[in-house]
Formats: sequence, structure tokens, C-alpha cells
Amino acid sequence: MAPTANRTLDGHKLLVLLGVTGPPKSLLGTIFRPEWIAELNELFPGLKIVTVGDATWNTPSFQKKFPDEEWKDVTILVTGSALPTADIAPKLEYVQLQSAVTRYVDIQRQSRWQKLAEPVDDAVQQRVGILGYGAVGRQVARVLKALGMDVYACTLHPRLSPESRRDETYTPAGLGDPEGILPSKWFSARDTEGLHEFLSSGLDLLVITTPLTRNTRGLISRNELALLAKQKTFVSNVGRGEIIKTDDLIDALENGVIRGAALDVTDPEPLPDGHRLWSTKNLFISPHVSGDSRAYAQRVYEVLKHNLIRLSEGRELTNKVNRNEGY
Amino acid sequence: MAPTANRTLDGHKLLVLLGVTGPPKSLLGTIFRPEWIAELNELFPGLKIVTVGDATWNTPSFQKKFPDEEWKDVTILVTGSALPTADIAPKLEYVQLQSAVTRYVDIQRQSRWQKLAEPVDDAVQQRVGILGYGAVGRQVARVLKALGMDVYACTLHPRLSPESRRDETYTPAGLGDPEGILPSKWFSARDTEGLHEFLSSGLDLLVITTPLTRNTRGLISRNELALLAKQKTFVSNVGRGEIIKTDDLIDALENGVIRGAALDVTDPEPLPDGHRLWSTKNLFISPHVSGDSRAYAQRVYEVLKHNLIRLSEGRELTNKVNRNEGY
Repeated sequence: MAPTANRTLDGHKLLVLLGVTGPPKSLLGTIFRPEWIAELNELFPGLKIVTVGDATWNTPSFQKKFPDEEWKDVTILVTGSALPTADIAPKLEYVQLQSAVTRYVDIQRQSRWQKLAEPVDDAVQQRVGILGYGAVGRQVARVLKALGMDVYACTLHPRLSPESRRDETYTPAGLGDPEGILPSKWFSARDTEGLHEFLSSGLDLLVITTPLTRNTRGLISRNELALLAKQKTFVSNVGRGEIIKTDDLIDALENGVIRGAALDVTDPEPLPDGHRLWSTKNLFISPHVSGDSRAYAQRVYEVLKHNLIRLSEGRELTNKVNRNEGY
Repeated sequence: MAPTANRTLDGHKLLVLLGVTGPPKSLLGTIFRPEWIAELNELFPGLKIVTVGDATWNTPSFQKKFPDEEWKDVTILVTGSALPTADIAPKLEYVQLQSAVTRYVDIQRQSRWQKLAEPVDDAVQQRVGILGYGAVGRQVARVLKALGMDVYACTLHPRLSPESRRDETYTPAGLGDPEGILPSKWFSARDTEGLHEFLSSGLDLLVITTPLTRNTRGLISRNELALLAKQKTFVSNVGRGEIIKTDDLIDALENGVIRGAALDVTDPEPLPDGHRLWSTKNLFISPHVSGDSRAYAQRVYEVLKHNLIRLSEGRELTNKVNRNEGY
């Protein structure tokens, strides 16, 4: 390792072996994208980068592509698991392994069990839009943020100031988002334009947590679902079934407008036997259970205590029913 | 609502209607625990608390238990959904509804669909012990903390100072626990005594994220599983199968020593057809897929870039293989 700074990485040579297959097998994808090489070239003008492409480790074809003398000045290696011996690469300083498994030869187990049928996405850097940013929406935001997602919030009323983004609803310590600081962007669904701007903002996932009111009944219909087509947004509804027009949702799922949906609430409820939703593709249905918990009664007691303390201090109560908005 | 402070809630009368059933039905549990009443009596010596117990709303038996004149001075009501009219309870200031559904009569849907077969626990205030607090363990901690769990960490070496709890491993921004601030308690598995103290600390869930080394092979065996019996801890292993002694785990599951287990890794791997684990009760098995992600190559590139920047600045590299410990 260099003891002093060398901002351009002058004199370094990076070898990318990720295209290389053959025993010992690398466990995972063997991709090293051209744009990463471009970025490294820009960051470190003195760094020489060599890729080998598809080849089988230490076959004649590999050695032709990358003869032993090429190893002499390699200082940095990115590899699935293929490793040169020390005498072949005497200047090697840093090996970036692609796998967390550094001893799988030692521990003598077959590495071919973990067949990846289809590529799996994780949540990091995906974007979730949360429609309705009350107690439920804020806790959804907390969990998805912890999974690495970018959070957008959409509320009925515009929330432009930090103060307006707060929520004094009872929240167990450390949970939810009482300060309203988790979303990187806020939208208002006060008018159709605002709602459509939110739905067009590149959402990988839309989570609906709004209550059912005169303003939210049928809020998500054909026009709104069409805005999700570009990103093929996955839709989750834990609010109320009537917020989405069921027939429009079925069409969007059947026609591949959206990637899929998960409904804990449906319209109608209970969903009758033989209803079209039961056979709609790419759809998960659970029978309105997302609020169930053995701790529910305890939580209600915590709200009561919280409010009695506020009452005893002459402060305003929280978790109030909003008579104007109807929830 | 009181405009001024009234610390003891003098003159207030709280009526608990949660034991009351009958139409309109309350959706969820009708529990109001005696210890809550005791706590409120202590917090607010001036508050009079009245419970009605089991009764059907507005039947003669209910009215006998709670005649109309009892309503006259009720200021606070906790109820599933039963509500008095304004003339019966003229002083009512604050109604704590047990349900989030305030308009389910209005919206005319049957509320009996959501049958609760068995009570469901949520994660809030449950305790997870994470064995191995590296990159994986720290991200597990972040997600479970966001779900409301109390996090205990157990590492090989004691981590007594704030500095020692840090981890310079590459972590996407906002994820993991690079500062080591999420655990409320730290343990060290350097010796059996420390490991046993950790396993005896009242864990609802144990997540194993350690690498397989000479120190961790067979670390969790019969004696260790026995320590989990009191809490019937659920065990999840995403480290390596050989960390748990398979036969001992099967015994613990079959005999109800632990509540259940989820293994993403097994010993042996791949798990052969007909192996006893496949038919062990209360056990989930996934075929070593918890690290899979389409973003894996991208993440490896981020580590590489992170380290090249450190190298160019003459700083120590991170995410290093630890030759002494063997991982």
C-alpha cells in the first residue's frame, strides 16, 4: 500500500479479471461495465486499466490474451476468485475480491448449489413514493429508507416549510419520521397536476397509505396508472381499497402497464369468491391484516397516555380525527 | 380540552369501554390491562378511572353497569367504536378510538372479513442479538432498528470504546452502522462465558452473520441452543452453515427449545435430497441466496473506487481480508 498520496495513481496498473471464468468458479455476475472504466480513467489519469474479457483461467487462450510478462507490473487486481501466485505478480498491492467467500476452497463445499434463476434486485437506490405521509406512511418510509431506498412523499396539503413537515402523532421512540426529514422530495396531491407530477417522478414502488375520504376515493384510476408505465412501478395499497379503481388496476396489471401490485385492502371487501382480482396476474392479496398486532392494544394505551400527559399540561391533543377531511 | 395545565387531571373521569362488545363491533382486541390503570392512577392522581368490563353496548345489563347518570361527568373515553350521543355525555372532551377506521359505517362495507386466526406479533420492542457485527450485521441492525427492535451486538473482540465500534468497511451512504451506534449493548464472544452471556440476554431473535473461521466453526451447539430456551429465541443464520451444529439445531427445533429457525446457509451445502433438515419442523431454508443482487457487481465497483481513492490519498484500504482470523 502506498504510504504517501498519489492522487492520479501514477504507475499503477489495474487488471480486471471479471470476464474470466473457469475453475475456481466465481460465484456471481462477472460484469465490469465500460462506464466504470471511463469513470476510473477520469478519477485517476495515471492509472492503467487492463481488461481481459471472456477467457478461461490459465488456458492457452487466456495466456495468449494476458501473457505472464503482463502480470509483472499489475498493482491492483479485481477478480471473482482466480488468483495469480506471488512470483507471477510481484507488485500486486491490492486484490479486490468480488465474493465475500475467501475460504470456500478450504472449507470444501460445492459452490454450485446457489443457482441464480433470475437476477434479483435489491432496494438500494430504488425510489419509493409514499402517498399519504401520516403515521403509517412515515413508518413505511423509515423501513424502506433503512433498506437504502430514496423516499418521496406526497401529502394532501403542500408541506413547504420544515415545520409543516412535522407530525405530532404519537410515535414509539426512534420510529416513523416525526420530524419529516426522510423524504428527499415532497409533492402535494391537492390538485391533479400535483398528483400527476408525483406519479411521474420515476417511482420504482408506490405505497398508498392515505385514509379513504371524499378526496381520495378513486384517486388512482386509469390516467394515474398510465403515468406509472414508464418505470413499471410496483403498487402497494395499505390504505383503503376504494382509493384505487379496481377495474383500472386489473387492466394495468393484465396489460403490463405496472410490474405488479400488493393489496392489503380491496374494493369490495371482503373480496367475494370468484372476483376477477383473485385471478389477476402479478398481484398479491392479503385480507386487510397489515395493521394487526398483538401489541395493538398496548399501542393504543401509549397514545392515550401520551395524550393524557398533553392534556394535563394544557397542550393540544394528537392523533385527532380530522373532521374537515373526513378521517 | 383544558386550556391550562392540570398536572393531576383533577376533575377528569376516564371511561374504558374496551371490554364492551356488540354492534358496532370493535375490530381488534378489547384489552385494557390492569397495570395500565395502575400506571395512570400513579401519573394522574386526580383522574377517576372507570371500567365497564364485558357487556353488550346499550343492553339492559350494560345500562345497569353504567347508568346514564354515570356519563354526565365523563371527560375522556377509550372505546373500540361504541359512542354515546352528545346529550348523554355533555362533558366529553377526548375520545380515544382503538381503531384507525373512523368511517367504516359510512363506507358500508362488512368489517368481518379480517378474521384474526392467531395473534400476530410485531417487532417493536422485541430484542435481536446480532452475532458478528461487520458489514452484513450492521445492515441487519439498521433494518431491524427501523422496525423498532432493540439491537444487541456480539463481536469476536471486545469493543469497549466508541472508536473500536466503528467500521470503515465501504457502506452505501445512510446504510449499515459505520459509527457503531445502533446496538444498545455490546458483548464479546472471545470466550465461552462472553458468548453465553450474550445468548442469555433475552433475545427474541438471533441473527448470525459471522464468517466461518476456526473460531466460529460449531460455535452454536447444544449448550448454546439451551440458553435460548427461556425466550424460545428464533434463530436466523446468514453466515455459514458450519457455525451451527446441524444435529443440535434439529434437536432444538424438534424439541421446541427454540421457536423456529431460518437458514440461508446449511451444513452440508448443497443440502442433499432426503437430508433430515428438509423435514425438520419450524424451519425455513433458502439456498444461500441472501447475498444475491443484480446490484452486486455495482457494489463491488463502489468498494473498488472507494479503495482506489483511499490508495491515491495514501490511506489504509478497507474491506480487507483478515488473514489472522481467516476471513
